[in-house]
Amino acid sequence: MPDKDKIAITLDHGAGGKLAHQLTTELLLPLFDNPLLAQLHDGAVFETDQGRLAFSTDTFVVDPLFFPGGSIGELAVNGTVNDLAMCGALPRYLSMGLIVEEGLPMADLRRVLEQARAAMDLAGVQLITGDTKVVPRGAADKLFINTAGIGVVPPGIRIGGDGARPGDRILLSGTMADHGIAVLTQREQMAFQSDVRSDTAPLNAMAQAVLAAAPGVRVLRDPTRGGVGTALNEIAVQSAVGMTIQEALLPVDPAVAGICDLLGFDPLYLANEGKMLCCAPAQQAEAALAAMQASPYGRRAAIIGEVTAQEPGRVVMATRIGGRRIVDMLTGEQLPRIC
Amino acid sequence: MPDKDKIAITLDHGAGGKLAHQLTTELLLPLFDNPLLAQLHDGAVFETDQGRLAFSTDTFVVDPLFFPGGSIGELAVNGTVNDLAMCGALPRYLSMGLIVEEGLPMADLRRVLEQARAAMDLAGVQLITGDTKVVPRGAADKLFINTAGIGVVPPGIRIGGDGARPGDRILLSGTMADHGIAVLTQREQMAFQSDVRSDTAPLNAMAQAVLAAAPGVRVLRDPTRGGVGTALNEIAVQSAVGMTIQEALLPVDPAVAGICDLLGFDPLYLANEGKMLCCAPAQQAEAALAAMQASPYGRRAAIIGEVTAQEPGRVVMATRIGGRRIVDMLTGEQLPRIC
Repeated sequence: MPDKDKIAITLDHGAGGKLAHQLTTELLLPLFDNPLLAQLHDGAVFETDQGRLAFSTDTFVVDPLFFPGGSIGELAVNGTVNDLAMCGALPRYLSMGLIVEEGLPMADLRRVLEQARAAMDLAGVQLITGDTKVVPRGAADKLFINTAGIGVVPPGIRIGGDGARPGDRILLSGTMADHGIAVLTQREQMAFQSDVRSDTAPLNAMAQAVLAAAPGVRVLRDPTRGGVGTALNEIAVQSAVGMTIQEALLPVDPAVAGICDLLGFDPLYLANEGKMLCCAPAQQAEAALAAMQASPYGRRAAIIGEVTAQEPGRVVMATRIGGRRIVDMLTGEQLPRIC
Repeated sequence: MPDKDKIAITLDHGAGGKLAHQLTTELLLPLFDNPLLAQLHDGAVFETDQGRLAFSTDTFVVDPLFFPGGSIGELAVNGTVNDLAMCGALPRYLSMGLIVEEGLPMADLRRVLEQARAAMDLAGVQLITGDTKVVPRGAADKLFINTAGIGVVPPGIRIGGDGARPGDRILLSGTMADHGIAVLTQREQMAFQSDVRSDTAPLNAMAQAVLAAAPGVRVLRDPTRGGVGTALNEIAVQSAVGMTIQEALLPVDPAVAGICDLLGFDPLYLANEGKMLCCAPAQQAEAALAAMQASPYGRRAAIIGEVTAQEPGRVVMATRIGGRRIVDMLTGEQLPRIC
């Protein structure tokens, strides 16, 4: 985008929607062009002498650091664990890079790191290398955490955003938008009481269970920033397929739905931190669903729609009232610093 | 440090000196306790089914983004490349996590990333996964970059901070403090003209050449934050040896020495971004030195001292005027946001 160099970075460039997609495809991909990066998946899978490894990274800038259901510590661990899990990998090792603002109470740092450690134990991963930078007051806001992770991809597993086929069923492992709403209500000091908690959770065991139960699954994705709507669009584009989802089948917690109605948010575009999407061949869809529902993080899993051959790259929602609505990629930032 | 939880994080906690060491050994290591992390090396080395891999991460918060001799883009690549190289590894793959402040000119981001790409080509590594977060104006300062990297450790290579033995010669691959002074003069808009440029450079080829020429080398380290003085102290502690270095043998560029004199900085504690230390058995020291000097980044390499059995953990400098000065670990932050 040579003519666009006069523009400045906006919040939308980080929102996981259209502008972020454009930044990736127009600046980052051409610049760092290579086949592994071009997979455009949650993580990259590369061959070693024996076996394949997955490698992924994610940075967390969530505000506030602590919110109902979790903290930046758990997010930073689960985020990278889940990116690896969505490659079909068994997450093994993490790195952690901290950027701390001068003045952060040591007790807050300790609490965040303790919660990170607990999340690592739950996911079965180890922190093996790290780095800490402290910046002067005002040069960063409290604490940012980057994690990168390495996982082992079992033989025979081939997962990618381009693996959806017409006829596949689309599965979602539980309710949408819990994380987005939990952070939002905490941040805005909302007057109303809410029991909504972040869904931050490790998805590696559930992902492996799904792949064991439904070996035909070729697409896994965790709908974080940009939500389910954006993640489905990415898959539809990469697989060159259409998708139809049923509004009536989309799991949403009633409290989350209520807050979304009140504030004018669409749960399809709010962040999730412990949910996964998968596309499963029709004859294996029930087995995949059962595997999800057997997980403590997948009890409300549902089949939400179907992959189609019509209108490749387009996601359509059949509404409750019998209409048909196009589900576009998120445009603009709904909630900055949500993860 | 349970009684210390009331304290807050200070700049010194990120300075690569005593407080940073304390944060690592008293909070991070006990919390994330595992043998790989406890290596306390620039990167962690772990076994896979066939062969060993090295994994490392580093975050860059340098201010300003551009300085004589480089930018945050080159630093972010070379920093992780060098951490892997100091494990004896061949760096292969990088991840990159960007935190961008809203309002950063797109042209600046593009320039940084182009310089990162050029540095990757020079080092022979590929970016294979990444993440971009944008935070609102004022929540971060311009741009922070985290990189993590994976390298392959050739069979037979065993490098660690604990491998120094009495009688080993201590080698430094070139002049000290160039990076620290280059950033400082740029940042402070100094009135005097200076030709000092950052030494940011990839050290992987030089490290491999040293290991080929001097297979008895068991310690490699790049003296970044905290400088040569702090890096030597870390090795002395981990190896439980003493060290004596000769002031007269320490390579310092005259312009850097002059600025240090003027401003009261000690080049022993200023950051380097393209230099390495190694400890080589006495009979292989000349071969290691020749390998360094044959590299474009090691022309001014020198043998600067010797590992001793006296006073384990202590580094002593024989001064030009025949005195003896203890070289302690850096205490306090000389220059925040130097890398």
